[in-house]
Amino acid sequence: MREQKGILTVVSGFSGSGKGTIMKRLLERYPKEYALSVSATTRQPRPGEVHGREYFFVSAEEFEDMIARGDLIEYARYVENYYGTPRAYVEEQLLAGRNVILEIEIQGALKVKEVLPDTLLLFVTPPSAQELRARLEGRGTESPQVIEARLRRAAEEGQGVEQYEYLVVNDELEECVTLVHQIIQCEHSRMARCRNQINEINKELSSFVKQS
Amino acid sequence: MREQKGILTVVSGFSGSGKGTIMKRLLERYPKEYALSVSATTRQPRPGEVHGREYFFVSAEEFEDMIARGDLIEYARYVENYYGTPRAYVEEQLLAGRNVILEIEIQGALKVKEVLPDTLLLFVTPPSAQELRARLEGRGTESPQVIEARLRRAAEEGQGVEQYEYLVVNDELEECVTLVHQIIQCEHSRMARCRNQINEINKELSSFVKQS
Repeated sequence: MREQKGILTVVSGFSGSGKGTIMKRLLERYPKEYALSVSATTRQPRPGEVHGREYFFVSAEEFEDMIARGDLIEYARYVENYYGTPRAYVEEQLLAGRNVILEIEIQGALKVKEVLPDTLLLFVTPPSAQELRARLEGRGTESPQVIEARLRRAAEEGQGVEQYEYLVVNDELEECVTLVHQIIQCEHSRMARCRNQINEINKELSSFVKQS
Repeated sequence: MREQKGILTVVSGFSGSGKGTIMKRLLERYPKEYALSVSATTRQPRPGEVHGREYFFVSAEEFEDMIARGDLIEYARYVENYYGTPRAYVEEQLLAGRNVILEIEIQGALKVKEVLPDTLLLFVTPPSAQELRARLEGRGTESPQVIEARLRRAAEEGQGVEQYEYLVVNDELEECVTLVHQIIQCEHSRMARCRNQINEINKELSSFVKQS
């Protein structure tokens, strides 16, 4: 019944919102329906990171070639490194009908939405600021400076959130994964994504009336 | 966790789309989450129709009083009768956190959306025009004139459908009921409906940073 393209979903959220875990579980639970977009970066791999899994690790020259060829949907430079979203993989997966998930922060999310307006923007939050603070404070082993820096970052991350289309409250993980899955499923029924189907039906209905 | 108001959902669709059956099943399956809005009308009850179930049957004078008092969200006059949506019941149910379902045609749907912009508009269709035609032709016992009139009506019903927010394809009934339920559930996570919650979190986060 569904012959639609997949939906590109950008997931952002507060540090400590658990967005990484949600996406991991989403892919574990529905491996055929989702693909994770892997970013390219010029930063060095950290221990345990695998090329093509956490990131595509490329040289600055390779990255700049990708920019020049238009191979990136969006990219940004943080401190001394580039980060970007390769276009080819995302487009292939969407055409194959798989939903692609992309985890990036807000500036990147809005750039993606500009380039690909059908992109769905989700923002993940803990149920309350108190809960977020408790998560950021962790087991109380961090210095006050580290905790303050985290809170400051969270306060920044919340800016511009009104430009997202859904607010996903991560209270209980598995329920939250189900919600994210259902949001993406239901988005397939959004009128804006079904125009061809309904135009087809309307056209055929008119032809019945003209014939009769 | 959810302290939101309910969502008013207007369901329209082609005659023969099965929208009435979908709503009936939705209320049977989730009786606590949904309430059906009952329209007021000045037309005579048909055999088997119950006051307060199919319609509130009122006199023309009573109906005109309701209009004058602003008691109707929308109303229209067809042939010689008035039809309208009483406001009080809808608002009570929404405030109590129940989702209200309202089955009306497109002109009424758009009026409701104008008065209550948070209203969700769903349009129900069979999977194809061929399938719709087959359903309208029924068991082949109707005259060609009746079938043509039905097709003509369906062709009209499809006009303006792009103003709805979701297109619900009714292929298998129970799946379709699940989809409608999930669409309404997921709509509760729409950013536009969560502004208070996220503003609260952002405000509290800022206060943490100022304190520290």
